[in-house]
Amino acid sequence: MNFCSQCGAAAIELRVPEGDTLPRYVCAACHTIHYRNPKIVVGCLPEWRGKVLLCKRAIVPRLGLWTLPAGFLENGETLAAGALRETLEEAKAQVDIGELYTVISLPHISQVYMMFRARLASLDFGPGPESLEVRLFDEDDVPWGELAFRTITRTLRNYFLDRKLGGLRLHVSAIEKRATLKPELTGAA
Amino acid sequence: MNFCSQCGAAAIELRVPEGDTLPRYVCAACHTIHYRNPKIVVGCLPEWRGKVLLCKRAIVPRLGLWTLPAGFLENGETLAAGALRETLEEAKAQVDIGELYTVISLPHISQVYMMFRARLASLDFGPGPESLEVRLFDEDDVPWGELAFRTITRTLRNYFLDRKLGGLRLHVSAIEKRATLKPELTGAA
Repeated sequence: MNFCSQCGAAAIELRVPEGDTLPRYVCAACHTIHYRNPKIVVGCLPEWRGKVLLCKRAIVPRLGLWTLPAGFLENGETLAAGALRETLEEAKAQVDIGELYTVISLPHISQVYMMFRARLASLDFGPGPESLEVRLFDEDDVPWGELAFRTITRTLRNYFLDRKLGGLRLHVSAIEKRATLKPELTGAA
Repeated sequence: MNFCSQCGAAAIELRVPEGDTLPRYVCAACHTIHYRNPKIVVGCLPEWRGKVLLCKRAIVPRLGLWTLPAGFLENGETLAAGALRETLEEAKAQVDIGELYTVISLPHISQVYMMFRARLASLDFGPGPESLEVRLFDEDDVPWGELAFRTITRTLRNYFLDRKLGGLRLHVSAIEKRATLKPELTGAA
């Protein structure tokens, strides 16, 4: 933030406003406080006869890797509406949204993932503009080494494990920033 | 938004960017797209031997009405950390955060409420700067007519009903804009 979006002044300061506890972008000219807050990524895990629907990303980041349909919740949307929209956009798929399944905080990038279970309404699906390919996968065929995000890996792992254990339940968790370990710390050569 | 926070130009247009589907604030000078997304309100329902902890608001909106400790999730925070912080700020109370209990989309104001169950760690609590009073309530004493937000009423109603039914489970729902009905439509005089 270089300029105040309210008054246009090049007078943005990062400081703790009076009565607040955290630093904010504050305009020294018009005193507007510009708050920044985490974003919600909403999506779903579309199921079809034991298989799950994944999309191969046609966009950065993680172009060419596989993901569940998900994206930023938009203003004016409910969570379920956002999950439906993303699934239609990325996989051209109609789903019935089920229970909320994983909620994952990503504090280092100020995002919260919220993934619902969903039932694919038909086999009429295909890549939207943000996908290269859309496919149904059995557990054994899931490209575990080519998943785009840790949130997606966690959601899919929870799902297949819960299925084996006989009950799907909400998982609320957090994923912290991944440390970059030097080889001598990992035990690798 | 009157000015571009990137380049300072008074050239903000509301239009659908190429490849997008929704209108955004776009700077005609430097082409920055200024996205706006829903905010998360995170909080908890602190329990103590069958009672729940409520805070009387010292700030607008809804000054003087009762609420559960909750507020905007901050950048860099997990959901649980946000619920802990809000409870400490508003009720000076230490809690142990439990299960996620209500998730309520409010599309007309682009917010998503996420309320956790919580156990009050001690009776050492009191009003923070945003509260006039903090008290424990039995179900019969809850000031149902003086609650600050419909999200809070719904969370508390779910809670006391679930307790009667013998099991607390996640509730995911939405609250739409409340219509202002004219008397002839409501049946009132």
